Amino acid sequence: MQFNEYYNGRTGLTVGIKEILFSEQTPYQKVEVFKTDTWGNMLTIDGMVMLSEMDEFVYHEMIVHVGMFSHPAPRRVLIIGGGDGGTAREVLRHPSVEHVDMVEIDEAVVRAARQFFPEVGDFENPKLHVRYEDGIRFLENVTDPYDVIIIDGSDPVGPAVELFSERFYKNCYKALTPSGVITAQTESPWVASYHPDIKNLFQVLDATFEVSEMYLAYIPLYPAGMWSFALASKGIRPHDPEVLQRVEQGTTKMASTLQYYNSEIHRAAFALPGFVRDIIR
Amino acid sequence: MQFNEYYNGRTGLTVGIKEILFSEQTPYQKVEVFKTDTWGNMLTIDGMVMLSEMDEFVYHEMIVHVGMFSHPAPRRVLIIGGGDGGTAREVLRHPSVEHVDMVEIDEAVVRAARQFFPEVGDFENPKLHVRYEDGIRFLENVTDPYDVIIIDGSDPVGPAVELFSERFYKNCYKALTPSGVITAQTESPWVASYHPDIKNLFQVLDATFEVSEMYLAYIPLYPAGMWSFALASKGIRPHDPEVLQRVEQGTTKMASTLQYYNSEIHRAAFALPGFVRDIIR
Repeated sequence: MQFNEYYNGRTGLTVGIKEILFSEQTPYQKVEVFKTDTWGNMLTIDGMVMLSEMDEFVYHEMIVHVGMFSHPAPRRVLIIGGGDGGTAREVLRHPSVEHVDMVEIDEAVVRAARQFFPEVGDFENPKLHVRYEDGIRFLENVTDPYDVIIIDGSDPVGPAVELFSERFYKNCYKALTPSGVITAQTESPWVASYHPDIKNLFQVLDATFEVSEMYLAYIPLYPAGMWSFALASKGIRPHDPEVLQRVEQGTTKMASTLQYYNSEIHRAAFALPGFVRDIIR
Repeated sequence: MQFNEYYNGRTGLTVGIKEILFSEQTPYQKVEVFKTDTWGNMLTIDGMVMLSEMDEFVYHEMIVHVGMFSHPAPRRVLIIGGGDGGTAREVLRHPSVEHVDMVEIDEAVVRAARQFFPEVGDFENPKLHVRYEDGIRFLENVTDPYDVIIIDGSDPVGPAVELFSERFYKNCYKALTPSGVITAQTESPWVASYHPDIKNLFQVLDATFEVSEMYLAYIPLYPAGMWSFALASKGIRPHDPEVLQRVEQGTTKMASTLQYYNSEIHRAAFALPGFVRDIIR
């Protein structure tokens, strides 16, 4: 049996599947877990790969550490989405963290992750507070601001479509402390049909935040193997000397758990090929 | 109709095909050209994608410019393989170049490229000398050395297997001028079955050259979307201040033709994720 995900006409990914472990049409989306032949278990939402056990480290290290190390000492962190638990796991590796709210709209994602991806989440950690709510509504009512907000939603279709809107990012800005930083996943630059969404999103970030930049990572099971992320802040820049010093020290301490992110990657991820620059400029 | 290339069990790429334009079993390999639904024409060798019209700029800019700008003024350039012509085209954009030898073992590749990829090659350029010979033997008899040698061969199977050997790289070293630089394609770090070849190759380069480094690029139709390259030299380092200055000036002059490579990419490409460092260290 083969799983197929097409991203450009009939071009895409094909993955050998041994068994369907979980399949549920929730009120929000279709959540499935497959046992693959070489990637361990793999989670998909509406037919799009979210993660496999073998490659999830790239996405989770890159959506978390680039922003977390940019902030001087993040105590309170908000994750919008992130139901598989991998983003919270990486956040919780930072010793300054005291409180993490993870707002996932769909409890089925967490249920599937806890059963079939036991190494991905750190759900028993007492600092982690999982809420099954609409993250977009949650953000409108934040009273105690966050140091870092991570937008770990799915693609800009279905319940995640508002995660690409101006209103959503204005609420993020309000919910951030003065030295606050956000990171978000922002699709594959190789997928032409997402270029308008990517362009609009970075225009919104430019208009809303003092600093906004795109960065990239190699994710083998995502469309074309290239994925983009946004970092935005009220002033901190990811290349500030203090940030680079924190990254150097922090990655040394964290070295035993890091498989992708390191201090060279922190800088290099912000270098954009010409065709990617052209999408957002 | 779908073209499939598997790289990890039954995981791989699937591409929608409209028509088979060329298919020939040569004395060396099976050469095919497909008309795809969204990537233009696509060349494969023994079932492995070599390039499409839409994505070839990444591979060709990255295998050429990183090394060519590292050399102060490359006049004589040797390309081993490179039958589609894209590597020679990018080499010939450098104004210092006077003479390019392209040594391609299989004339069928050049024939297919001239017919079905007219934008890729620059075969009428009087500086370009195409020889249909075994590049490995050719290298053993070089009397007039080269400033830059580019190893643009296929994967380490079939006629390209010796392109990963110590003897081959010792001959490269001998065929280089004192400020000489080589670049080579060195497979996808996401493909576990190639790790021994990649590791051996970098050990050979370390033992043979004064400088050797791996760099990376995002290539959507190659396995997992991540491709590695080697740069090796008799002393020049790709991060030397003079090199970075040449890159800055050269990419500005060449800006209208560059879709991937730029001065930030030149530096960033050498940053390796942890799991990639682990393959070669």
